Amino acid sequence: MQQAEASLNADTSPREAREVFRRGGLRPTCGIAKGFAQANMIALPRRYAFDFLLFAQRNPKPCPVLDVLEPGSHTPSVAANSDIRTDIPQYRVWRDGRLVETCADISDVWAEHEDLVTFLIGCSFTFEFPLMDAGIPVRHIPAGRNVPMYDTSIRCRTAGRFSSTMVVSMRGIQPDRIADAVRISGYYPSVHGAPVQIGEPERIGITDLGHPDYGDPPVLQDGDIPVFWACGVTPQAAVMASKPSFAITHAPGYMFITDVPDRRYMV
Amino acid sequence: MQQAEASLNADTSPREAREVFRRGGLRPTCGIAKGFAQANMIALPRRYAFDFLLFAQRNPKPCPVLDVLEPGSHTPSVAANSDIRTDIPQYRVWRDGRLVETCADISDVWAEHEDLVTFLIGCSFTFEFPLMDAGIPVRHIPAGRNVPMYDTSIRCRTAGRFSSTMVVSMRGIQPDRIADAVRISGYYPSVHGAPVQIGEPERIGITDLGHPDYGDPPVLQDGDIPVFWACGVTPQAAVMASKPSFAITHAPGYMFITDVPDRRYMV
Repeated sequence: MQQAEASLNADTSPREAREVFRRGGLRPTCGIAKGFAQANMIALPRRYAFDFLLFAQRNPKPCPVLDVLEPGSHTPSVAANSDIRTDIPQYRVWRDGRLVETCADISDVWAEHEDLVTFLIGCSFTFEFPLMDAGIPVRHIPAGRNVPMYDTSIRCRTAGRFSSTMVVSMRGIQPDRIADAVRISGYYPSVHGAPVQIGEPERIGITDLGHPDYGDPPVLQDGDIPVFWACGVTPQAAVMASKPSFAITHAPGYMFITDVPDRRYMV
Repeated sequence: MQQAEASLNADTSPREAREVFRRGGLRPTCGIAKGFAQANMIALPRRYAFDFLLFAQRNPKPCPVLDVLEPGSHTPSVAANSDIRTDIPQYRVWRDGRLVETCADISDVWAEHEDLVTFLIGCSFTFEFPLMDAGIPVRHIPAGRNVPMYDTSIRCRTAGRFSSTMVVSMRGIQPDRIADAVRISGYYPSVHGAPVQIGEPERIGITDLGHPDYGDPPVLQDGDIPVFWACGVTPQAAVMASKPSFAITHAPGYMFITDVPDRRYMV
C-alpha cells in the first residue's frame, strides 16, 4: 500500500485516488488530482444539522458548503461510486468535543447512528494548482509536506450551539506575487477565496509560525511573506468549542477528493 | 400615505423607505434606495428550518441566503432598527401550502408561533441599478411597474420536504447589450447572478410572456430579447408544492430593503 500512496500525484484521477485511500493508503491529499475540487468533511447527528448548516452559512470564508448529504446517507453526489466512510485517507472521531479516535475507516462508528448528516466543505488545496500554474510556488507540495494550519483569534459568527474561532492555512509567498495570489484565490470563493491576513500572524493570534496547530511545519524561503487563508478545519475547532455529543471529521490535510472540476467553482 | 410612497425613489435611504412601509406605504420596491441590497423573505416554524436552509444551499441561483434570523427573532442584523414583521410593504400568509391572506403587517400572525425562523434571500432588484449605470435600460422602473415573474419547468434540487420548480424574473434587453447584462449581473452571485435563460422562454416552460405569474405585464420595446434571471419567489413555489403547515413570505416585488451596500455582494 505504501507504494500505491507514494504513486499518487497531480495526474492521478479522483477515482483512482479514492480507491487507494479506500484500501488504506495514508497521506495528505495536497498535490493530488490536479483540476478537481477537494473537500473537508464533518458528519453530525441530525439534531445538530440546522445549527451547523447555519454556522457554515454565517461563516462562508472558512465554511463554504459544497454538498450536504441526506440524513444517514454516505454516498456523496459529487463523487461517483464513492463512500464517505472509507474514501478519505484519515478520519477523526469526536465525542462531547474530545478527539477520541483517529482511523482510516469509519464504517463501524458510523453504524452507531442512523441519522448522520454529512457536510462537505471547500478546501484551499483546490486553488493550489491554479497558483502553481501562474508560477507561484506552493512550497509544501514539492517538499512532500502537509500544509501548516493554525488556530487564530478571529471570531466566527455564532449559530445556535456552534461557536468557534477561525482556523487558517498558511503559504509563504514572495512579495512580488502576493497580489497575484490574492487575485487567483479570490476567483474561488467556494474554496475559501482570497486570504484573510497577509504578513502579520501576530495580528490574528499566531505567536509561533514554526509550530502549526495542524499539519506540518511550514516551508519558507528567504523573503517569503506568510499569507493566511480561511481553513475548513474550522468546523473541528467548532466541535472542540461547542461539544456536540458526536461528530466525525476528516483529519486536517487528509481530504475527500471529488469529481467536480475546480473550474466549476470559479467566479 | 400615498404621497409618502410616491416620493420613494433611488435617492431614498433604506431606513426612510422601511419607515414608509412600516406606516403602511404600499408599492413594489424596484427603483428604491440605489446602492443597497434588497431581500426576499420567508419565515417558517423551526421544524422546517433545516430542510429549507438545505433547499436554499442546494439551489443557490434562486435562493442565495443573505441572512438567517435566530428562531423567534424579528430583528434582522442587515438593517438597523428594523422589524421584519412591519418593514416590508406587503406580505403573504400561507397555511398548508395555500395563500390565505395578503397584508401589510404580520405582527398578529407572527404571534401564533414562538419559533419562526426567517430567511432573507438575495433579490435581482439589487443589480438593476448597476445595469442602469452601464446604460442598460430596466424598462419596468421608468414605467412604474413591478418586474414580471414566471413559473418555469426548471426543476430545483429537492431537500427533505422541500421541492419546487424555479421562478424567474424577466427583463427585455437589446441584443447588443445582452453580453454586458450577463457580465454585470454575474458579478453579483449573491443576488441571483447571471441569467438562467436568454431568448427562448418556451424552453423553460413559459408559454405566454404577456401574462406573468407574478408582478406586472412586461414592458418590451422593438427588438428586445427576453432575458430570465433566477428569482427569490422560488421559495413561494416551494411552499405551494411542499405544503408546510405555516409560512409567511413577502409579496413578489415587495421586498425588504437592507442597509447592506450592494458592493458588499460583488465578486
